[in-house]
Formats: sequence, structure tokens, C-alpha cells
Amino acid sequence: MTFLAELERTASAVEHRLGEHLAAGPTSPGGTELAEAMRYAALGGGKRLRPFLLIQSARLFGVDEAHALDAACALECVHCYSLVHDDLPAMDDDAVRRGRPTLHVAFDEATAILAGDALLTLAFEILSAPATHPDAAIRAELVLMLAKEAGWRGMALGQALDLSATHRHFSPEDTVTMQTLKTGALFRFACEAGAVLGRADSPGRAALVAYAAAFGQAFQLADDLLDAQGDAEAVGKAVAKDADRGKATLVALLGVTGARARLAGLVAQAEDALEPFGGKAATLIDAARFVAKRRA
Amino acid sequence: MTFLAELERTASAVEHRLGEHLAAGPTSPGGTELAEAMRYAALGGGKRLRPFLLIQSARLFGVDEAHALDAACALECVHCYSLVHDDLPAMDDDAVRRGRPTLHVAFDEATAILAGDALLTLAFEILSAPATHPDAAIRAELVLMLAKEAGWRGMALGQALDLSATHRHFSPEDTVTMQTLKTGALFRFACEAGAVLGRADSPGRAALVAYAAAFGQAFQLADDLLDAQGDAEAVGKAVAKDADRGKATLVALLGVTGARARLAGLVAQAEDALEPFGGKAATLIDAARFVAKRRA
Repeated sequence: MTFLAELERTASAVEHRLGEHLAAGPTSPGGTELAEAMRYAALGGGKRLRPFLLIQSARLFGVDEAHALDAACALECVHCYSLVHDDLPAMDDDAVRRGRPTLHVAFDEATAILAGDALLTLAFEILSAPATHPDAAIRAELVLMLAKEAGWRGMALGQALDLSATHRHFSPEDTVTMQTLKTGALFRFACEAGAVLGRADSPGRAALVAYAAAFGQAFQLADDLLDAQGDAEAVGKAVAKDADRGKATLVALLGVTGARARLAGLVAQAEDALEPFGGKAATLIDAARFVAKRRA
Repeated sequence: MTFLAELERTASAVEHRLGEHLAAGPTSPGGTELAEAMRYAALGGGKRLRPFLLIQSARLFGVDEAHALDAACALECVHCYSLVHDDLPAMDDDAVRRGRPTLHVAFDEATAILAGDALLTLAFEILSAPATHPDAAIRAELVLMLAKEAGWRGMALGQALDLSATHRHFSPEDTVTMQTLKTGALFRFACEAGAVLGRADSPGRAALVAYAAAFGQAFQLADDLLDAQGDAEAVGKAVAKDADRGKATLVALLGVTGARARLAGLVAQAEDALEPFGGKAATLIDAARFVAKRRA
């Protein structure tokens, strides 16, 4: 199977399982709208890159997809909640996401805040449920890791730094720090969770963390290049927003050619990190190449 | 020690421990504001009723306060996050809470959304950390319980129902259902978590759950009575809001006298539930009497 076919197959499996998790919601009036909003935010779109990384990382350690799928769904819930809240008028004020109206536009602001809260909470409900892993120690560790990566020293801090960019000078280094937290934290969880599910030894786990760091930076740099050059139709959301907001990105610092060179270096770094796994890591290496080359 | 002295002593212990949890935050510019906002929301106020119930419930099963304090702090983080988000302009649009400006007024809306998100996430970080309980199975169970009680079939659903009251008919029964979810869910967690920390048997756990249900309804009915009769200064927030919004409460249905009678019945129910514990449950019984009588 080609990489793209594998990515799409996994996205379908995640979509299906997420749909099952999101089917069990409240049926009372008022509650149905909340559940619909959560489904709107979490289903029907996205490449499911984070779940893919989690599943592929787990596979490196002999865990089959079925036993990594719930953890992957939990992670995707956190990702989707973060998009919903980041898009809010008080935050980035985005009206379009994945080519569709954002949640607060399609529903309303209160429902968007609440659906985001509920998706974040659902992530921990899924992750701590016995179906996710028979060993409670693994489940508790995954919860702790996800809470740390998503929280006030991880993704939420990244969003706070991003918000602060509107009222203070933002160097390219500040931008990288912000992006490492805002985007990188969940990639790190994805890869490390795979290692934890597979009871990886410490060097194996460290290799995945190193891969995730390079992957996350490559993803973000490709995103910045898209933002600087892309057209809104292909990307499915507003572009050139970073420059509008005066946020210094690496692309502004290095230029497009320099940024492309750095991107190639990051892909090489991701490959190096996975060297100990040999050919087994081919799909994860393909994933790093894929994000570096993506056009949308 | 009198009940009030015990309640205040526990509140101090919770305040202190919460302060320790909230001291370890990010120090980068942008991040400090997030951490400050979280401290503003979580510290310096409140009777800490939910932590008190958790600690007292755990004590029934021989767990000392030190070993219930972290779970109590996690619960309080969820409670504080819910207040922050409920107060937002898109939600209940409240400007005053505990006699102070609400978080989005004191800081800004984006910071309030984010600080709420981060407090919710921190709750799961605290709850899943080994310091909370040495047995990972207990930690995973607490996480699962808290996520369920706080999530889309629990507290978040209650808030969704509350929001829906503005655009549909709301019977007194609807109001009770909404309140049971919005307010009752965390009381239930408080008492059940105490039982889980103490490895209570199934009847013991069920007794605490029954107590929590009566307690939660008594708390809410007392709140409705305050809302109908109270003055804003004593309560420390806006009052008579329910009637303004056309939400039918039990007080409207039963009248003040009827509501007071029902309140007394709920306190008796709470007492009955704890009968198996005899004199050991005196503090929890005092707590039910206290919330029924409170004037603020």
C-alpha cells in the first residue's frame, strides 16, 4: 500500500471509531445540539495526522492498530477542541476551517466554547477507559502525558504565547518556541504514546520523542511556507494571516529558499532519529517527507 | 472543632495545596499571564465545598486528608474552570463572582477561555499523577469518573441545557434535570471519589452517591431561594437572574414555603443515606444542614 493510501485508510478507521465514541451522547433537547456540535468539530475532515503518528509509533513496538485506536481518538479529540477554541472570535477569529464554516459560525459561540470543553473532557474519558488498554498503569501514564502536553506548560501555553504576539515584539525564536508548544506538543504525545502503548524501552521512547520534535518543526515550517505562498482555496482556510499580524516566522527570517533548506534538514533529522528501527520505520519516515511536501 | 471551623480549616488546606500546584507554571512572557489568570480563577475564594465533601467522604473509609488533598484540588480545578467559562459573555455574561470581577473582566476574554481550558486540563494532570494515589488503577478510575461527571453527559450537558432555556419552554422538571447535571455532577464526583480513594465496598459507595444526590439538590434549592430572595451584596454575584431569564425554578413552582419544606426533606434524605456510617458521618450531615441554611 502506498503511503497516501495507508494515511487515508487510517483516517477512515479513526473517523469510524471517533464516530462510535461520539454516537453515545445525550439525547435530551439542548444536549443533542451539544453532541451535534461535537460531531461537527470532530468528524468529517482532516488528515488525522496525529492519530496516524500514534498508530504507526505503536506499530513499531508490535501494537496493532485496533489496540492503539482509542488512544488515537482521544488525541484527536484534544486536537479538535483546540481548533474550535482557537477559532473563536476572542481568539484567532477564523470563520473557515477545512473549507467549512467554523463551529461558532455554524452553531453559536456559547455552543462552540462548550463543545470544545466537552471534547477535551471526552479525550480523558476515552483515554482512561479500560477499553483503551487493559493495564491501568499505562492508562494513567497516557492521561498524565496528554494533560501535560495539552496544558499550561504545553499546547495551552503555546496558544497564550500566540495571543501575546499581538501586543509584544515576536522574534523568529519566539515564534519557534510558540509553535513547538502550540503544534509540537500533540505530535510529541502522538509518538510517545505509541511508545508507551508498546512498552518501549527508554532509548526506543527517546527515539520517538526526537522524531516527533523534528516532525513537528517540519510540519510547522511547511505550514508557514504555505501561509506565505499558498492560496486560500487549496489550504481551505485564510492564508497570509501571520504576516498580517506582524508575527515573525522562520520564513520571514530565512526567506523561502532558506526555509526550504531547513525543512529538508528537519526531514533528515526525523529519519536519523528512527535509524535504530531500520526498515520498520519506513512509514513514519514517509510521514515526515509527506508533511514537508504538503501543499494543503 | 465546630463544623464551620472544620470547613474553614479544610478550605485553607485546599487553598495552600492548590497554590502549590499553581506555582509551577510557565515563566515565559505570555505564559505568566496565563498562569496568573489560572491563579486568579482558582485561588483566593470560595468555601471549597466540593473538596470538603471529597475529603470527608474519604475520611469515612479511613483515608486521611493528606491522601485525599490532591484529588480534591483536581476537582476544584474543574469547578473553577466551569465558573470561568460559564461567566463568559457568550455564556451567562456575568461580571462579578465572589465579589470580584470575573476573569474575562479582570483579564480578557481570550485569556479567560484559555485559562479555563488549562484548569480543566490541569485537573487531569493532578488526578493522574502518582502523588494522588500510589495505585494506578485508582487514579485511572478517578480520571474516568471525573471526565464522565464533567463531560457531555454530565456538567457540560447541564450547561448546554441551561443555555437552551433561553429559547425553549423550561418546566420545573427541566430545571431540576439541568441543575442535577450542572451542579450535582461534581458533588457526586466529590463523594464517590472519596469512596474510591478509600476502596469502599459497593454498598458504601452507593450510600455516598445517594448522599451526594440529596446534597446536590439541597444546595441548588437553597441557591434558588437565595436567587429569589437574596440581596446581591450578601451573595457576591448578581441575583434574581433566573426569573429575569424566564427559567422556571422549583421555588416558582412550590413557592418559598414549599421550597423550604422540600429543602428540609432533602436534608433528611442526606442523613438517611449516611445511616450505615453512624456517628462517623456527623460532619457530612452537618455539611448538608449547612448548605440548606446558607445565606450566601
